[in-house]
Amino acid sequence: MKRAIVLLSGGIDSATTLFLAKKKGFRPQSLIFDYGQRHRKEIEFAKKLAKRARSPYKILKLSFPQKSTSLVGRKREIPLRRSLKEIKKRIPSTYVPARNLVFLSIAASFAESMAARAVFIGAHTEDYSGYPDCRKEFFTVFKKAITAGTKDGKNLRIYAPLVNKNKKEIIKLGIKLKVPFEFTWSCYTGGKKPCGVCDSCFFRKKAFKELGINDPYFKEK
Amino acid sequence: MKRAIVLLSGGIDSATTLFLAKKKGFRPQSLIFDYGQRHRKEIEFAKKLAKRARSPYKILKLSFPQKSTSLVGRKREIPLRRSLKEIKKRIPSTYVPARNLVFLSIAASFAESMAARAVFIGAHTEDYSGYPDCRKEFFTVFKKAITAGTKDGKNLRIYAPLVNKNKKEIIKLGIKLKVPFEFTWSCYTGGKKPCGVCDSCFFRKKAFKELGINDPYFKEK
Repeated sequence: MKRAIVLLSGGIDSATTLFLAKKKGFRPQSLIFDYGQRHRKEIEFAKKLAKRARSPYKILKLSFPQKSTSLVGRKREIPLRRSLKEIKKRIPSTYVPARNLVFLSIAASFAESMAARAVFIGAHTEDYSGYPDCRKEFFTVFKKAITAGTKDGKNLRIYAPLVNKNKKEIIKLGIKLKVPFEFTWSCYTGGKKPCGVCDSCFFRKKAFKELGINDPYFKEK
Repeated sequence: MKRAIVLLSGGIDSATTLFLAKKKGFRPQSLIFDYGQRHRKEIEFAKKLAKRARSPYKILKLSFPQKSTSLVGRKREIPLRRSLKEIKKRIPSTYVPARNLVFLSIAASFAESMAARAVFIGAHTEDYSGYPDCRKEFFTVFKKAITAGTKDGKNLRIYAPLVNKNKKEIIKLGIKLKVPFEFTWSCYTGGKKPCGVCDSCFFRKKAFKELGINDPYFKEK
């Protein structure tokens, strides 16, 4: 069985990606970053997901030299939900510059050291993100950097299987793959229950509602 | 004055690069990685260099998910000096996969957050390294990944000013720039004095000798 590194955050997207990697016949090794997120909840859910997928996991502490965005550190306010038009207009303040570039670089290093053949990332262009390093163009160029910068880079594939999907499509895929959505966490706040109003909760709620599916997330926590 | 991030390790190459960045009119911010090197000495010397260059610095803890190489962790043996022919033949076991890719990615994230216009790295193809992510081809492609993956990436330059230089040329440049070579550290071991026999010591010694210059490094420690 071919090995793969899966970047796992504890959200719907990376959870679906993890189960997709399994479905594609890979033996996934999950990589969870502890980079000073607002709360530990995300990491706890990522661990639960990895266990459910029977994927070994590593939690990696990583501090970005700057702490200037609202997802890292507690000082700045979390932006509340914005319209799709607003989202498309500008990069949100939750942006950590080049976060996926950093995560993928470390994953590629790890992949080479364990002779893994693939790195999976659940990033996508649609939905609330809008980060430049979530786009297909970026992954294509990044793959070239890996080929140029590592010994076995030409044998390493970067999979971003959700890149062109929207939240609804991701949820549909996740349900098909039997992703345990009750073990995911989307909310930007770290309360006992998801807040329901931040960008992340809002779009999740909306997508499940439009699909006519019950989201165990808002029910059971 | 334009800001620049300089990757600083404490060795001759990054020290020369730091002083070159200043010479080019940049205000350098040094970034020192604490990634589980064999000894703390490298980091202590990097701090001294930054102070001498009047560059603010950040020390960033970073653990690679694997610990499979001899520079990271203490279990594997450091390779003793090999012939130039051997070096050209194969990648040495001190190799940390994609290390420069990881360092540059974090530096690029930092650069964007502080609106720096450049990242400087002292890597070069010649000498004892032979790592794939020390080559010009890599830096060219990496720059494209930055442009695709960050908001202001097109305004960020990646400088690898030593990439085509050998150790002798770097030392000559360093002397011209008045780099305080007594505050650099090259030895792979962390003893009180440099060992003089590891790859790194050997090539340093050889280069200074061939230039007919006294190396304060082997004298004063």
